[in-house]
Amino acid sequence: MHKIDFWVSIGSTYSFLTVMRIGREAAARGVSVTWRPFNVRKLMMAQQNVPFAGKPAKLAYMWRDVARRAARHGLSAQVPVEYPIPELEKANLVATIGCDEGWGPDYIAETYRRWFHDNQPPGQAPNLTDSLIAVGQDPDRVVPLAEAPATRRVLNMVTAEAEALGLFGAPSFVADGELFWGDDRLEDALDWAAGARA
Amino acid sequence: MHKIDFWVSIGSTYSFLTVMRIGREAAARGVSVTWRPFNVRKLMMAQQNVPFAGKPAKLAYMWRDVARRAARHGLSAQVPVEYPIPELEKANLVATIGCDEGWGPDYIAETYRRWFHDNQPPGQAPNLTDSLIAVGQDPDRVVPLAEAPATRRVLNMVTAEAEALGLFGAPSFVADGELFWGDDRLEDALDWAAGARA
Repeated sequence: MHKIDFWVSIGSTYSFLTVMRIGREAAARGVSVTWRPFNVRKLMMAQQNVPFAGKPAKLAYMWRDVARRAARHGLSAQVPVEYPIPELEKANLVATIGCDEGWGPDYIAETYRRWFHDNQPPGQAPNLTDSLIAVGQDPDRVVPLAEAPATRRVLNMVTAEAEALGLFGAPSFVADGELFWGDDRLEDALDWAAGARA
Repeated sequence: MHKIDFWVSIGSTYSFLTVMRIGREAAARGVSVTWRPFNVRKLMMAQQNVPFAGKPAKLAYMWRDVARRAARHGLSAQVPVEYPIPELEKANLVATIGCDEGWGPDYIAETYRRWFHDNQPPGQAPNLTDSLIAVGQDPDRVVPLAEAPATRRVLNMVTAEAEALGLFGAPSFVADGELFWGDDRLEDALDWAAGARA
């Protein structure tokens, strides 16, 4: 079975496109996807990688580009949405629990949908609890688990692993040790995983 | 006739891919291309947009990505090459003259080829004179013209026009007032120019 690691961080804007697309694109190529939630903000701050803050032209373009790419892929999105999100870490702590327990990808898709359709930021009310309930999880069980110190340690260790692999942003993909960055490299990454090298 | 403006700045790495691809991709869609040389470094410095300096992970990825994308498009490239180039402004001053006189696109392709095949930076010996001679131009005529104060004024005015259009990097494309950024948006931009909206 062909495999790919999908390095996902709730809070990344372009990752909306990937979260909504990767399931069908991977299935079409027979590639199995492992979702790896990490803290892209912590990683990028450590690298002095500031994509949009203080860059109004680049920020305006990003929203327009996301809207165009969403339309191209048949996805609906009401952009711009609130960004950056205040509870990025909590959203990804919940994703960390979810990916361990198997409902992570569904939760990530639900929370992105509420963010990009209803402008409800992930990781906080009402998005957080509604997304958990939508995937059959009890917020009173999951949120305390996500807030436990051990979960933050895991997320920080996974983020350090991402940095060691050469990541500098999200979404990113690693296929057979080869790093790809950006939703617009999703197809390239999956093709690489499936053995079709350029 | 469908039209697109190709905002090109010699010195941008990903623009190598576009310079080598845009002719055939535009022709395939019946789109006419106007090459608009500008000073991307001046624009990005004014916007505090620092893509790679001090970002080793992002820089290493960029070279690997350029190599993979080149292979995907059937282009040969020996990367990494010297970067950033010291004579970015001079290279684009020459391109400014060339695009006024009609030989600009050929010169830009020649200078990129020497940079990405032979690691000879544009805008200086031997790349500058060899590229001019290769496109039938006399360096003793062209270089003084490029170095004239009026040419720098033109390049700076065109760069200000780029900023007013919302540009923040290169390569960029404007089709019917719609901005696209990056070699990986070339097809989207040409499709937009040709009237195929998502």
